[in-house]
Amino acid sequence: MVDILHRVAVARTSPEKVYDALTTTDGLAGWWTTDTTGDAAEGGVIAFRFPPGGFDMKVLETTPSEHVRWEVVDGPDEWVGTTIDWRLRTDDDWTVVMFEHQGWAEPVEFMHHCSTKWATYLMSLKSLLETGVGAPAPRDVHVAFPD
Amino acid sequence: MVDILHRVAVARTSPEKVYDALTTTDGLAGWWTTDTTGDAAEGGVIAFRFPPGGFDMKVLETTPSEHVRWEVVDGPDEWVGTTIDWRLRTDDDWTVVMFEHQGWAEPVEFMHHCSTKWATYLMSLKSLLETGVGAPAPRDVHVAFPD
Repeated sequence: MVDILHRVAVARTSPEKVYDALTTTDGLAGWWTTDTTGDAAEGGVIAFRFPPGGFDMKVLETTPSEHVRWEVVDGPDEWVGTTIDWRLRTDDDWTVVMFEHQGWAEPVEFMHHCSTKWATYLMSLKSLLETGVGAPAPRDVHVAFPD
Repeated sequence: MVDILHRVAVARTSPEKVYDALTTTDGLAGWWTTDTTGDAAEGGVIAFRFPPGGFDMKVLETTPSEHVRWEVVDGPDEWVGTTIDWRLRTDDDWTVVMFEHQGWAEPVEFMHHCSTKWATYLMSLKSLLETGVGAPAPRDVHVAFPD
């Protein structure tokens, strides 16, 4: 099992604000994909849709301002059963976001792609919170072919 | 041992051009750090310097237009002994760049940071080749604290 790891730090932003961007459909639509629907509270299922397809995530855990954990319950075969883990902490007036997409069966080329793409979406989350403007799909940053 | 994985695809660019950007100090200075010196040919050592410090890389392998491999011989403790592996291939008029930073001892927070930062530097490489303008240090994209 292999994992995608990332970290960003969001300037002049409280953990509460980052947590809101991870646990409300409006927040998620501001940085990941504008087509976000469902129930982002613990126990709910969030439907994320992109031009090429999408993911359904079951919300396994939400600890306010600290921790969010999702399990992929529908989407590409390589994603189903993997988990997305978010941990937040304060460092002066920054919020540090530790990200792990855990449990990939193999380090396939699609995993390489998703690792780079996650980085651009984390930068979109950072930008949304720092400037008010994110880059969610369909106006996302392209890292490879139209993706 | 854990690895950082990424992939970008560079539009309208031959593998030869990407290979040049990985195996010449001028090319490397265009996307990673402007302070790049040394010998980027196989068997040489390249010195990459950034405002907070730097890395020395021994060039283990260079297969024109296909493969480049470096070993970190000096730098932060977590980096020394790890390897940076680049594989290139053509896909229509794109060049696909498969990147692996292999052999981290543990998935420490610094590894999370470097994973995100590598993504931004790979986007800098892509931008350099597609537009002529990269974002090497010290004008690099910041993902966390001043980094």
